[in-house]
Amino acid sequence: MAKGEEAAKQLPKVLVLRPPPMFKMFEKEFSEKFQFLKAWESPIPTDQFLAAEASSIEAMLTSGSRPVTADILCHLPSVRIIVTSSIGVYHIDLQECRRRGIAVAAGGDVVSEDVADTAVALLIDVMRRISASDGYVRGALWPIKGEYPLGSKASNCDILVICCALTDQTHHMINKQVLAALGKEGVILNIARGSIIDEKELVRCLVQGEIAGAGLDVFENEPEVPREFFAMDNVVLSPHRAVSTEESSRAKFELISGNLEAFFSNKPFLSRVNIDE
Amino acid sequence: MAKGEEAAKQLPKVLVLRPPPMFKMFEKEFSEKFQFLKAWESPIPTDQFLAAEASSIEAMLTSGSRPVTADILCHLPSVRIIVTSSIGVYHIDLQECRRRGIAVAAGGDVVSEDVADTAVALLIDVMRRISASDGYVRGALWPIKGEYPLGSKASNCDILVICCALTDQTHHMINKQVLAALGKEGVILNIARGSIIDEKELVRCLVQGEIAGAGLDVFENEPEVPREFFAMDNVVLSPHRAVSTEESSRAKFELISGNLEAFFSNKPFLSRVNIDE
Repeated sequence: MAKGEEAAKQLPKVLVLRPPPMFKMFEKEFSEKFQFLKAWESPIPTDQFLAAEASSIEAMLTSGSRPVTADILCHLPSVRIIVTSSIGVYHIDLQECRRRGIAVAAGGDVVSEDVADTAVALLIDVMRRISASDGYVRGALWPIKGEYPLGSKASNCDILVICCALTDQTHHMINKQVLAALGKEGVILNIARGSIIDEKELVRCLVQGEIAGAGLDVFENEPEVPREFFAMDNVVLSPHRAVSTEESSRAKFELISGNLEAFFSNKPFLSRVNIDE
Repeated sequence: MAKGEEAAKQLPKVLVLRPPPMFKMFEKEFSEKFQFLKAWESPIPTDQFLAAEASSIEAMLTSGSRPVTADILCHLPSVRIIVTSSIGVYHIDLQECRRRGIAVAAGGDVVSEDVADTAVALLIDVMRRISASDGYVRGALWPIKGEYPLGSKASNCDILVICCALTDQTHHMINKQVLAALGKEGVILNIARGSIIDEKELVRCLVQGEIAGAGLDVFENEPEVPREFFAMDNVVLSPHRAVSTEESSRAKFELISGNLEAFFSNKPFLSRVNIDE
């Protein structure tokens, strides 16, 4: 056995169903601390892989895009901690975790600044049509069509910023009634989760001019985005990147490592999620 | 003579060579205060029109896109004030104005907030690639190509914001040496005038990766924009719209009217430009 392999055998084992977006970026640094069981690399079906390889695993790392259901957890009788790289935990069956005494640690506030920056950027962008202007210039329309239409200052409209967690209570919280109340001068920004807004209603309101505009970083069925948005120049679309800077990716790596290290050394987690009812 | 026409005859006369962008928007309100000589509507050459119609005119209104040269002023022996809707006065022959005792009033600070908003928007947009992300989503690339590349926080780079007036001293002030000093992590924002930057050098630096990105509201030969920019996703292009909201257009209308009214009633101008050497 080579020395590197021997050292790896002694590192704490962590199961990864599907790697978080920043996993590859920090894979080398992660691998100096943990030995990863990479379920996504195995050619055999996940449940068979878990039954064969992961029955004694105590810790798992996951991302917001991979649901952690009771079905998956039933293959993992020894799991005691789930560390998710996401801020939200809607994809994890918290009731099952509670029942089985599994702790959950999430992304905490390492990306708060990035998300706030994105909210400001989307807001100014929608109000002043920055992305649309950029498309206008790139499309070489400026010399042909002349002056681009005016934008507006923030002060003359109502702005609704969605920045809460997705839960059963907030699912489709922004519905027909809320959008109607926002009104013709209203702008909606969503940097939280797509399903907090009833997206079909949002499309309808924008098509019919019942609200003024939208800045959206998240969507109901990512990466699918309603095609109706593509032709709207009062909408700014961002591919769920509010949290994604190099700096916050490193902060996430450090938080995830810190949570796993705390677990393996019986210390308090850095960002434990309260899952008590 | 109809009553309206008679009233118009009594309003103070103002020459307009070419209307500022917001002129049409407030034409009705302007026309209640002033009688405009619309040089741009005349089929005869401008110098003949001025000689025939404008020799007794005392006030003129202009925009930043129409040079007011000594040649034009020589047809206007009675002019005593030039009101420009622009913030800058580089397009006006100030030496000639000084020599002839012509006062100049400009846009003052009515658009400062809008320009500041635009600078912030361009900055976050370049750093976090908002416009490029928007294009990525609209191009339906998200489901095909997956995660969009990471952006950066503002904290890790050097940002140069150009917000000074264009003068003989600032023309091409941002040259090869300045761009080289800004460096590979540097981002340049221009919300002032295109010619303050040596645009050919800027294109070269961006093509060769010698600076990190640019947010540009202004260009050297507007509305022409170097084609090389169109393929760059670290550049945000805006068609000289930093100052253009409905709110600031009204503020401009009020400032222009106020300056002209002050002139015709011998009161101090609201935003006189100091053209003393």
